[in-house]
Amino acid sequence: MDESSTGYPRAVRRTDDGRAVDLLDQSRLPAEEVRLRLESVDAVAEAIRSLRVRGAPAIGVTAALGLALDAASHTGLDPGAFRARLRRSDALLRETRPTAVNLFWALDRMARRAAAHRDEPPGVVACKLYGEATAILEDDRASCRRIGEAGLTLIPHGGANVLTHCNAGALATAGMGTALAPLYVAHADGRRLHVFVDETRPLLQGSRLTAWELARAGVGVTVVVDSVAGSLLRRGEIDLVITGADRIAANGDVANKIGTYPLAVLARHHGVPFYVAAPTSTIDAEAAHGDTIPIEERDPDEVRRGFGRLTAPAEVPVHAPAFDVTPAELVAAIVTERGVLRPPYDDAIARSLRPAGAAAGANAGR
Amino acid sequence: MDESSTGYPRAVRRTDDGRAVDLLDQSRLPAEEVRLRLESVDAVAEAIRSLRVRGAPAIGVTAALGLALDAASHTGLDPGAFRARLRRSDALLRETRPTAVNLFWALDRMARRAAAHRDEPPGVVACKLYGEATAILEDDRASCRRIGEAGLTLIPHGGANVLTHCNAGALATAGMGTALAPLYVAHADGRRLHVFVDETRPLLQGSRLTAWELARAGVGVTVVVDSVAGSLLRRGEIDLVITGADRIAANGDVANKIGTYPLAVLARHHGVPFYVAAPTSTIDAEAAHGDTIPIEERDPDEVRRGFGRLTAPAEVPVHAPAFDVTPAELVAAIVTERGVLRPPYDDAIARSLRPAGAAAGANAGR
Repeated sequence: MDESSTGYPRAVRRTDDGRAVDLLDQSRLPAEEVRLRLESVDAVAEAIRSLRVRGAPAIGVTAALGLALDAASHTGLDPGAFRARLRRSDALLRETRPTAVNLFWALDRMARRAAAHRDEPPGVVACKLYGEATAILEDDRASCRRIGEAGLTLIPHGGANVLTHCNAGALATAGMGTALAPLYVAHADGRRLHVFVDETRPLLQGSRLTAWELARAGVGVTVVVDSVAGSLLRRGEIDLVITGADRIAANGDVANKIGTYPLAVLARHHGVPFYVAAPTSTIDAEAAHGDTIPIEERDPDEVRRGFGRLTAPAEVPVHAPAFDVTPAELVAAIVTERGVLRPPYDDAIARSLRPAGAAAGANAGR
Repeated sequence: MDESSTGYPRAVRRTDDGRAVDLLDQSRLPAEEVRLRLESVDAVAEAIRSLRVRGAPAIGVTAALGLALDAASHTGLDPGAFRARLRRSDALLRETRPTAVNLFWALDRMARRAAAHRDEPPGVVACKLYGEATAILEDDRASCRRIGEAGLTLIPHGGANVLTHCNAGALATAGMGTALAPLYVAHADGRRLHVFVDETRPLLQGSRLTAWELARAGVGVTVVVDSVAGSLLRRGEIDLVITGADRIAANGDVANKIGTYPLAVLARHHGVPFYVAAPTSTIDAEAAHGDTIPIEERDPDEVRRGFGRLTAPAEVPVHAPAFDVTPAELVAAIVTERGVLRPPYDDAIARSLRPAGAAAGANAGR
């Protein structure tokens, strides 16, 4: 696939001169498209902290690039001071979003790389960290692309009207996203697509981000408030529903942004397939089923004062779960970078998690 | 029933001195509870126009009270000038909310009353209009109360966790509302209630108005964004769902605020009853089924700029239907002022629309 033809925005990359992190400032979307040139790890940390970049994979990649940038800027230090500098910058980045698992995963990977070259001169370590950050970014891009190619098999050749929720797109990754990757690939393949995008209360990632990135890539988009999905499905206007996943249990139950489960129930009621797209790193083999996954409760003021003024009585409680759980029996397929998993998920998931060679059989249907 | 024990707010009434309309300014809710003393028909018209009062029955009552007030203030005019004044005020009120059916219904009723006394002195006509406006208000209050009493039979004696959507409460009527009326009556009856209130995007009538009025009356309330309903039902936290109706077809299909239909599907999926409460005036006997009911498309900016800043790309289309249609087969019962209607609705609805004496049989179950 010629990836350049897909037209998706690049949430994070290195600048051409290699001296800065080039970030799309998502806090200014959808009103303005502003790219930031971040020339220091402090600037990178500020950008993560203030949500100029969000989405687990994109945060991890940004942090890795930030640390590599910091190393390259301090090769003149003596080895001890250089290592202290890296420890300080690592800690700075880890404090930006303390619940972002990918942030720690990426920085751990960077730390292992630095440790492996601990006795070499700062210039060599910086070079290795540059390589590691590049690998983290390229791995994420490749994973997105493979999800897109695998998911293409689920998009009818004649095109489709699609419903999606939240943002599991290019803006959440270094590549073309997860749930949106099959849509970008189908669009590049010339298939006729129209995507209905749920606004996604309370934080509006659908209307602010997903609608923006799809429209920018030339995909037909319509925004709807979350409660419109029912009437769209009832009128036969949706051919398939696809979302991302925050965590997938060993039995195929899917925890994802609040509002995903009602879409799965509505899709089933109307005989429309409900798909999930996510990298296998999202699978939590320790979680036997979805109800063991802890559901974060968000700040009530994200609902009550989400737009700068009071929209619910200040004294009334708000129940604001960040995620819901969709039972595996409502999920028609799970699209991963290792292929399309189909029920029964216990087996399909176990096979997908085996080392690459052993898993080949599981991916035959990809 | 002792209505004073229910604690619901009075959206509109006459001031004790009879010289003004006393209105709760809903545009200031939920931040502030401000009552307005409106001493002229111009002030009443402004209040309707600027949404200080909303909800079809409440608008109709407010307009009738405003016209009666205007008549009482102009009994010193000669009969011709008095009639011209009434025509001018009637036209002023009709222009405030040109799509509000109850507004026209109430003003037509006032006009018929004035016409019946056309040859009498202005003082007598004003007195008759005062009586007619009072009757319109009291009819609405009585209708709400009867819906509340009929609906009480659907609330378990041991109490219930209830889910509702939008505002079909006291704030929409001159009385205790429609969907909320059974809840107010159950609360006054000492039944343990907890009401989960859907925020109701895009205009947030649930979080702004329903949560406010229930909490003020001492009913336990929790606000949720619309997409939380699925996980509440999945976790068994909801015993029944009840909403109002904008229009009910002859077969029992229900057009109501967008987001009602997904609740009905989710309730069915989880074996929880979905009820509708509305006066029989909501039934459109000419509409054979719900899909003949026209669905108003709202201004996209209610979604895109609903909170004062851009939350979706300006150039992306928004599909913003005001209502959806819930097929009769998902509705467990329709609560009216003439009793609880049960499937098959074709028969139950036809019987409920017969004159009071003939309809008695249909209401035996009330």
